[in-house]
Amino acid sequence: MCASLTLTTQWWERCDPLYIVGDKGLTLLINNAGIMARPKLDAVTAEQMLSVLSTNTVAPVLLTKAFLPLLTMAAKVNAGKVNDGLSISRAGVINITSSLASIKNNESAGYYGYRESKAALNMSTQSLSIELKPQGILVQSIHPGWVRTDMGGPKGEVDVVESVTGMLEVMLNLKENHKTGYYDWKGRVLPF
Amino acid sequence: MCASLTLTTQWWERCDPLYIVGDKGLTLLINNAGIMARPKLDAVTAEQMLSVLSTNTVAPVLLTKAFLPLLTMAAKVNAGKVNDGLSISRAGVINITSSLASIKNNESAGYYGYRESKAALNMSTQSLSIELKPQGILVQSIHPGWVRTDMGGPKGEVDVVESVTGMLEVMLNLKENHKTGYYDWKGRVLPF
Repeated sequence: MCASLTLTTQWWERCDPLYIVGDKGLTLLINNAGIMARPKLDAVTAEQMLSVLSTNTVAPVLLTKAFLPLLTMAAKVNAGKVNDGLSISRAGVINITSSLASIKNNESAGYYGYRESKAALNMSTQSLSIELKPQGILVQSIHPGWVRTDMGGPKGEVDVVESVTGMLEVMLNLKENHKTGYYDWKGRVLPF
Repeated sequence: MCASLTLTTQWWERCDPLYIVGDKGLTLLINNAGIMARPKLDAVTAEQMLSVLSTNTVAPVLLTKAFLPLLTMAAKVNAGKVNDGLSISRAGVINITSSLASIKNNESAGYYGYRESKAALNMSTQSLSIELKPQGILVQSIHPGWVRTDMGGPKGEVDVVESVTGMLEVMLNLKENHKTGYYDWKGRVLPF
């Protein structure tokens, strides 16, 4: 909306999202942007790991922090609509994660930096969901599937429409609950 | 041993651990150094998260990469002793993690950067354990307990001797297996 994802502490001071969303706040923030890394141990570098962690983990946390006043505004404005429960119709943050984020399901190694960044993002999601619950903001991460995009490549198992349609259905059914895993685009639970 | 944990790609080229361990290799690498961060969302910054991720996640991966030739050497030298199975008596890497690394058990949020760094480290541990298994190198992470150190403070639940004694017993009993969680200093399994 207003800057690159290479964040600095004062990044959001240059943004003025209020100009766009007005006094109804921001109902739904989807942190989707991310970068891939596929090195095995012999090729990984500190710079590469930090670059991926910065974009895939740190940026979603800082963006959520940046938009928190607008999310809080939406949560108040929309409270009556949803009986004060949590839902993306009231106010929500969706972090797009990956099946590669599952530590328990990791059986192929590699992707140093990327796997770490998405496992860390699942942790951020859990922390944010706890911290923002009193403000009426739902936070969840969803794995979109292996999608045929520039990142996923032509061999992906699902096309963009099917992935997004599935994720929207999952998002619309999300409720307030403590997470014991995270969802994929079909609503299946993946273990942390 | 030979540098700070602020790593650059060529960091280990300035090290000469071979001078110390000789032709028997390095039997056990313990990645223990780490830094703490306790911010809630309103206080977290990108710089702080990246600093903690650099020290607590990236450094252990790069140190393991740096010492891999010596660990591989030890795994060969010691192979006969342990019937070619994996153990820290042959060659091992132990990453010191934290109970705060458990995404599933996270019920208090906060510690942005620290929680993420240790969850990411658990992911690195899983990847390294898979990638280094064919070389005969065991990789595991262990939570030392809340120890009365400079980091843990005087209210910690366990003193240094009890924590280290417990961890040594856990380490000595580690076998080759796929991880469905990680151990604490008493050998209890914590969920990812």
